Amino acid sequence: MKDLQELQNIILQAVKDLKYPSQPPDLYEPISYILSLGGKRLRPALVLMACDAFGGDVKKAVKAALAIEVFHNFTLMHDDIMDKAPLRRGQVTVHERWNQNVAILAGDAMMVEANKLMLQVPDAILRQVMDIFNDTAAGVCEGQQFDMSFESRDRVSADEYINMIRLKTAILLGGALKIGALIGGASTKDADLIYTFGEQLGIAFQLQDDILDVYGDPDKFGKQVGGDILSNKKTYLLIKALESAREGDAAGLQQWLDNISADPQQKVAAVTAIYNNLQIREQAEQAMQAYATKAFAAFDSIDLPNANKQYLRGFADSLLVREY
Amino acid sequence: MKDLQELQNIILQAVKDLKYPSQPPDLYEPISYILSLGGKRLRPALVLMACDAFGGDVKKAVKAALAIEVFHNFTLMHDDIMDKAPLRRGQVTVHERWNQNVAILAGDAMMVEANKLMLQVPDAILRQVMDIFNDTAAGVCEGQQFDMSFESRDRVSADEYINMIRLKTAILLGGALKIGALIGGASTKDADLIYTFGEQLGIAFQLQDDILDVYGDPDKFGKQVGGDILSNKKTYLLIKALESAREGDAAGLQQWLDNISADPQQKVAAVTAIYNNLQIREQAEQAMQAYATKAFAAFDSIDLPNANKQYLRGFADSLLVREY
Repeated sequence: MKDLQELQNIILQAVKDLKYPSQPPDLYEPISYILSLGGKRLRPALVLMACDAFGGDVKKAVKAALAIEVFHNFTLMHDDIMDKAPLRRGQVTVHERWNQNVAILAGDAMMVEANKLMLQVPDAILRQVMDIFNDTAAGVCEGQQFDMSFESRDRVSADEYINMIRLKTAILLGGALKIGALIGGASTKDADLIYTFGEQLGIAFQLQDDILDVYGDPDKFGKQVGGDILSNKKTYLLIKALESAREGDAAGLQQWLDNISADPQQKVAAVTAIYNNLQIREQAEQAMQAYATKAFAAFDSIDLPNANKQYLRGFADSLLVREY
Repeated sequence: MKDLQELQNIILQAVKDLKYPSQPPDLYEPISYILSLGGKRLRPALVLMACDAFGGDVKKAVKAALAIEVFHNFTLMHDDIMDKAPLRRGQVTVHERWNQNVAILAGDAMMVEANKLMLQVPDAILRQVMDIFNDTAAGVCEGQQFDMSFESRDRVSADEYINMIRLKTAILLGGALKIGALIGGASTKDADLIYTFGEQLGIAFQLQDDILDVYGDPDKFGKQVGGDILSNKKTYLLIKALESAREGDAAGLQQWLDNISADPQQKVAAVTAIYNNLQIREQAEQAMQAYATKAFAAFDSIDLPNANKQYLRGFADSLLVREY
């Protein structure tokens, strides 16, 4: 069994070895550029880790892992256009460094490249893997569209929100694990279980991210604490607060949401106080815990010795035990 | 054997029968919308026609034909954003009717849907078909990028231009025919020949389009005669004229290109006169004829009785015998 670090190194090398045509430069240079920006390469590492857990040769899963990484970066390139984001991993985004048309078209080409890479799985599992890959890709598009449409809506239900983060983020973890498991020789049943593990873990992780935005330790949490509050982002916390707030809290919360020139520190403190009053943190943690429990229940049902599962379990634990 | 009209009707019905999820509406409604705008459905009809010519059951090629049509419309949706086009087939474009982000994301989802449709070919040819499809898709992206980058360049060579139209337009005709042929049971050799037929025919057709823009009969040619001249579009004619013009013609041509407030009628007449002086029409017709000859040479080498080839030949003839 190989640990996360070793698998990430394999991906790192494989990404470096990816070669694209030199012409036309404005199509292929942006692809090499975004893939060179780094990131933790967790999604492709999950492909390898699942393959490894089922006793497969990780070398045989490298192309599929790259397919997941190229697909993920394609979605980032297009999301950055939609979000008008100036930076990605601290570097200038493709649509800013080149232009928007280049970013649209290079993203399209990456989707094709991701398919080419994924098609290199063995014949015996080709159709199954491509079906998972396309279902995942369609779901990620749906999740992104839900996310964008939520921005312009007054209210979003907690169920709608969970479904959005499931599609936008969680199913790619599930899909990566399932494809890796199939390459490693997993049964359909175990492949389904590891998909559920990834999907539910992804939802729990995203809920944790929402909690950390408000309650995280600024030194340990990578982003600015309160950033979601300042941007009025419809996180699980805000959605639950809008659902349960009555009278004074409801009016106060709405006032802060409507106040576009509020002092940042005051707004974060005031909204956090309303969350505290409504016990939103506890509700969010309960929800997060419920998804984590589902994830680990599926994981425990996978028919593998514990020794084979240790790195996957360790990965899941590390994902969910960030300091508050 | 079925004629073009009958095959187009099959496609028309199949496009109508395509059903997409109702949620999220801003992802799937634009897909149904662009597919409902019509068009001649030539590319998907070519899939069926090639399948039919090789004695295959066209019903078994309908999903692949739809894949080609959905892919083609995905490229149109994204091209329209890049070109800032207000209209597509006389109707409002997706990025104008919804917004740009919707058009980016719905296009992405169409690419996934095209893959899902293409994956429904039989196992025996699955890998071969998906390889053709992805190579074609990558080529189309390359062609679009070359086309965009040519706009900002002073000079483009005739070879570069031919390669651009080959990638942007012609190879999708070749790919559609080749995939249809394989579904119909063609040998690899015949599948390669029909690809060359489509590719070379596509180049000839595009060159004819360049000629018709200047020398077409305004009543028969669908677009405004001289439109390419007015927009300084680097067509085969302009490229050849810039290559061969000397002294007076060269200076005159450059003056008209630089004159952004020229009277339209005067500009078209003057540039056409320079083309006439340089015998550009004859050069372009020779080039077009050379590609048509290559197309028909490949077509004639396909190991099929003439009766099986009649509709494909008729299609090619109809494409290239437009009145000037």
